[in-house]
Amino acid sequence: MSDEEDMQKMKKAVVLSSGGLDSTTVMAIAKSRGYDIYSLSFRYGQRHCAELEAARKIAEQMQVVQHLVMDMDMKLIGGSALTDSIAVPKDWDEKERGDDIPVTYVPARNTIFLSYALGWAEVIGATDIFIGVNAVDYSGYPDCRPEFIAAFEKMANLATKAGVQGQKIRIQTPLIQLSKAEIIRKGTALGVDYGLTHSCYDPSDDGRACGHCDSCILRKKGFAEAGAPDPTRYQ
Amino acid sequence: MSDEEDMQKMKKAVVLSSGGLDSTTVMAIAKSRGYDIYSLSFRYGQRHCAELEAARKIAEQMQVVQHLVMDMDMKLIGGSALTDSIAVPKDWDEKERGDDIPVTYVPARNTIFLSYALGWAEVIGATDIFIGVNAVDYSGYPDCRPEFIAAFEKMANLATKAGVQGQKIRIQTPLIQLSKAEIIRKGTALGVDYGLTHSCYDPSDDGRACGHCDSCILRKKGFAEAGAPDPTRYQ
Repeated sequence: MSDEEDMQKMKKAVVLSSGGLDSTTVMAIAKSRGYDIYSLSFRYGQRHCAELEAARKIAEQMQVVQHLVMDMDMKLIGGSALTDSIAVPKDWDEKERGDDIPVTYVPARNTIFLSYALGWAEVIGATDIFIGVNAVDYSGYPDCRPEFIAAFEKMANLATKAGVQGQKIRIQTPLIQLSKAEIIRKGTALGVDYGLTHSCYDPSDDGRACGHCDSCILRKKGFAEAGAPDPTRYQ
Repeated sequence: MSDEEDMQKMKKAVVLSSGGLDSTTVMAIAKSRGYDIYSLSFRYGQRHCAELEAARKIAEQMQVVQHLVMDMDMKLIGGSALTDSIAVPKDWDEKERGDDIPVTYVPARNTIFLSYALGWAEVIGATDIFIGVNAVDYSGYPDCRPEFIAAFEKMANLATKAGVQGQKIRIQTPLIQLSKAEIIRKGTALGVDYGLTHSCYDPSDDGRACGHCDSCILRKKGFAEAGAPDPTRYQ
């Protein structure tokens, strides 16, 4: 068997894992498609580490081949409520929200995450990168849109050895057209334990969700619409 | 004066600075075009820190507004002679070199560098990012080609607030079509002190160049062809 055949047989995927509901569902989908999972999380100056702890538990439960936590000091760059001392907005009304890009947006975050994933994919010989971006219930982040993903994929194929040598790199976004409720239904069908996942932007010290930030509100609404029990521990 | 006019007046550029000959020339070019310079370097598990020391001195001498050194642990990813224990090739013959991508290639490095630059540009309100890639005397890295840069620029404009809000982000590559000799002539005309720059992949502990790695050979040849004195301290 040639090296190439061997690599195809392995079918490796890098899955970006935030420890949240979306990325965990994505991991279950990738697994159900027969990929060996290499999960990648980031310590990027988050105010709390509940999500990294969740990502670790999920990696263990999903039996990933390797779980990598990269350090990146986004605080040096700043500019977001998620890494700076800007207040996390609570109980936003849909109407108030408007078309503005929210303060929880971290500049170029998905671009940086995907770039690291691309580097790792190249080293381990994976041609598939999974990311849980979503264009339906998304929060107004420019780097969650299908046109951004398409442009990143095109760039990735020009950036790397694999791309240059004709192995197509694919950025897979299985949630991009799903509502939060559809995501939860899909994950539930695949046996995802959502009790392990963490979504809240502003949890208590013991990791319980605030129930009022943007992310909590979308999550709650999703469970309600999916008619699924919400296993989140709220404050 | 509106915020927008104020920002245009400022004309900020993020310049990727490796402390090497190319990026230092790029910085001088950006400065000559009237930009306020924000220089960005990376500590990415290089085997030596001579290049970071060079970048710091250059930032000081060029009077940049801010010099930022980001930590990124590329060693976790691995896969290159520049960060792993793979031997740096010496005295390669042009013919031996062939079309292969060399072992000094770091997977997705320019993609990651440019992604950080994009995040920083967004925070400080810069729309121009300068990078010293070169497609003439380049060493076979896929992420130094014009088509990669064009694809990154397109992606960047879809990834960010600035792009979405209609401020065009530009990835500027003033060296892309120049030979090493032309780069040196241009930099010399702009007053660059090449004695401050560092190119060697395998320097001695006191920062002197080996004179035999890929990067040293290209640099030497450049000074010879430009008819300029080579200020490099060799071992």
